[in-house]
Formats: sequence, structure tokens, C-alpha cells
Amino acid sequence: MSELSNVRSTGKARMEIAVYPLGTGNTSVSMEVSRVFDVLEKCGLTYEITVMGTIVEGPLDGLFKLARELHDAVLSDNVERVVTVIKIDDRK
Amino acid sequence: MSELSNVRSTGKARMEIAVYPLGTGNTSVSMEVSRVFDVLEKCGLTYEITVMGTIVEGPLDGLFKLARELHDAVLSDNVERVVTVIKIDDRK
Amino acid sequence: MSELSNVRSTGKARMEIAVYPLGTGNTSVSMEVSRVFDVLEKCGLTYEITVMGTIVEGPLDGLFKLARELHDAVLSDNVERVVTVIKIDDRK
Amino acid sequence: MSELSNVRSTGKARMEIAVYPLGTGNTSVSMEVSRVFDVLEKCGLTYEITVMGTIVEGPLDGLFKLARELHDAVLSDNVERVVTVIKIDDRK
Repeated sequence: MSELSNVRSTGKARMEIAVYPLGTGNTSVSMEVSRVFDVLEKCGLTYEITVMGTIVEGPLDGLFKLARELHDAVLSDNVERVVTVIKIDDRK
Repeated sequence: MSELSNVRSTGKARMEIAVYPLGTGNTSVSMEVSRVFDVLEKCGLTYEITVMGTIVEGPLDGLFKLARELHDAVLSDNVERVVTVIKIDDRK
Repeated sequence: MSELSNVRSTGKARMEIAVYPLGTGNTSVSMEVSRVFDVLEKCGLTYEITVMGTIVEGPLDGLFKLARELHDAVLSDNVERVVTVIKIDDRK
Repeated sequence: MSELSNVRSTGKARMEIAVYPLGTGNTSVSMEVSRVFDVLEKCGLTYEITVMGTIVEGPLDGLFKLARELHDAVLSDNVERVVTVIKIDDRK
């Protein structure tokens, strides 16, 4: 499946996030995707991009910080509205 | 709060649904909203519209049927892509 | 509908959040609900509790901060695992 | 990434689904996972299991049918409450 599959025992949380730009005039989101990649590359957390979003594993602080950065990255110059959907699975 | 607040004991399931049209050129979704209202009025289930979506209560079959209809209603002539987010809370 | 319905023009973001405790042994979550209420009362943002979660309006910083606090409030002594589902709708 | 990555052009919809059993007494969900696998194996659609849920691609009818079956599979003998989170991404 993925490199994330066997790391449950670390106690870190997992987040799945998708940021959707609305009202962009077309369904091509290549510029937003590029911005998202930049943010992910710099975040220092283990991530996996699926066809439905991005799955990230790390400490809760880092996950929330990253969520905010991804949201901001898509809500850029040309995007008037963004819907961000986040799911966090956290075990002690 | 709402008329839905006190009906947990009925055993019916609850669904929260939001259907987002993507690539529509602007963030005004008045036509889609109008279509959504039509579907909700005809579905025969108890619903409540919030600022974040629609909450509906009813049998699971009816909820899934409605979800499909709402999805289709937004994925209309002028909408090329739709993201539908559904949450179902179901107790025995 | 609700007091949140007419405030779109303020430019603030809206968040819908539900925090689910897993593995709690029963479906009664009264203690978690009590903790959630405490957090909401102290957050200083406008919120509305629905049957499916909580809708909050405010600046993005405040929303993310609140999301983290609600997540932590439910992930308490007796809860081993929490799934938090967040949807943010943000317009310029 | 996955075999789902290159099939956008087929016009089929994609669904991401996670079904959470609540009040189960512990966070081990091995029996529910086993039931979910059975349903997925028999559904005839292309699916991928991630650490956060299942991603499936297929016609909309098939996706909604599968969502219902997965929901029912987890809401089994020993589970009193289920929360199902679904995201559908559909393009013409």
C-alpha cells in the first residue's frame, strides 16, 4: 500500500486533507497543485498524495500548521473561495 | 437549535451533506442552490439547511437516495466537476 | 435558520467540526460533550451546535486554534482514539 | 502512487470512504475490517485502501451502492453506532 501503512505504533496522528478552490473558471488546478507540492516538500512530515487528497503523518501541532499552510496556498491571488476538508485520526 | 435536536430516539439516521460545484467561473451558486431546494422539498424527509450544508434525518435508504439526487442536481449543464461531502451518523 | 446565516459579508471563514471518540465502550459521550461546551464557551467565536457537529465563524487563526482545542478536549483520559472531521469554507 | 492515478480520463467518479464504529469498547476494529474487505472484494470496482480509508473508482451508482454496503457491514451485531464519512469527486 504505502510507506505509511506500518507506522501506527509511533503514536503520531494522521491527517487527510483536500483543499478545493471554488469559482476558478475551470477545473484545472495545476497552479494550486504546484503550490501545494511546495508546501508539502517543505513541511518535513511524511506524506502521501492520493487521488483524493493528501495523507500526512506527524505530531498534531505539525499537522494543524500544515493544514493552515495548504489552505492558504490554495487561497491565492486568483482563487476567491476555498473549501478545505480535513480528517484527523489520532491515537494515544 | 432546530427541530432535529430532539429526535435521536427515533432510530433514524442523520446525514450531513454539502455538494460543491468546481470550475464554475464564479463563487455564486444561486442556480445550484435553487436545484438543491427543489430536491429537498420533494424528498419527503425532515431537513435543515445550515450555512455549511444540509442536515437530513430519515431511513438510510432515503438518505442515500437523496444524496445521489443532490449530487446530480448540482452536476448540471454548466458544472463540469462536483465534490460531494457526506457524513452519516447512524445508531441502532 | 440561524444567526450565522446572514454574516457571509464579513469575510470571516466558517468551520464545521465534529470530534468522534472511538473505543469508548458505549455510545454515550456526555463527558466529552461537556468538555466541548467548555471549550466553545471560552473561544470567543460565534458558534452554533447542530445535531451533526458544531459550526463556528471567525478568523482562520481562531478556527484552527479552536479545532485543536476541541480535538484535545475529546482526546481525554478515557478516550484512546479520536477522529476529527473538519470542513472550512473561506472566502476573500 | 497507485493504479488509480492515471485513470482520470475515464470519466468515472471517485469516492473516498471511511466507516467508524463508535462505542465498541476498544479501538481494535479487526472484525469490522474483515467485513469491509469482503464487501470490497465482491464489489467489482477498482479500490485502494489507504491508512485513512478506502478510495474507489467507478460509476456513481456503483459507488453509492458500495457506500451503503460498507456502512451496513460495519454496523453489525456488536456495533451500536456508526459514523460514515464520504467524499465523492465527479467530473463529466
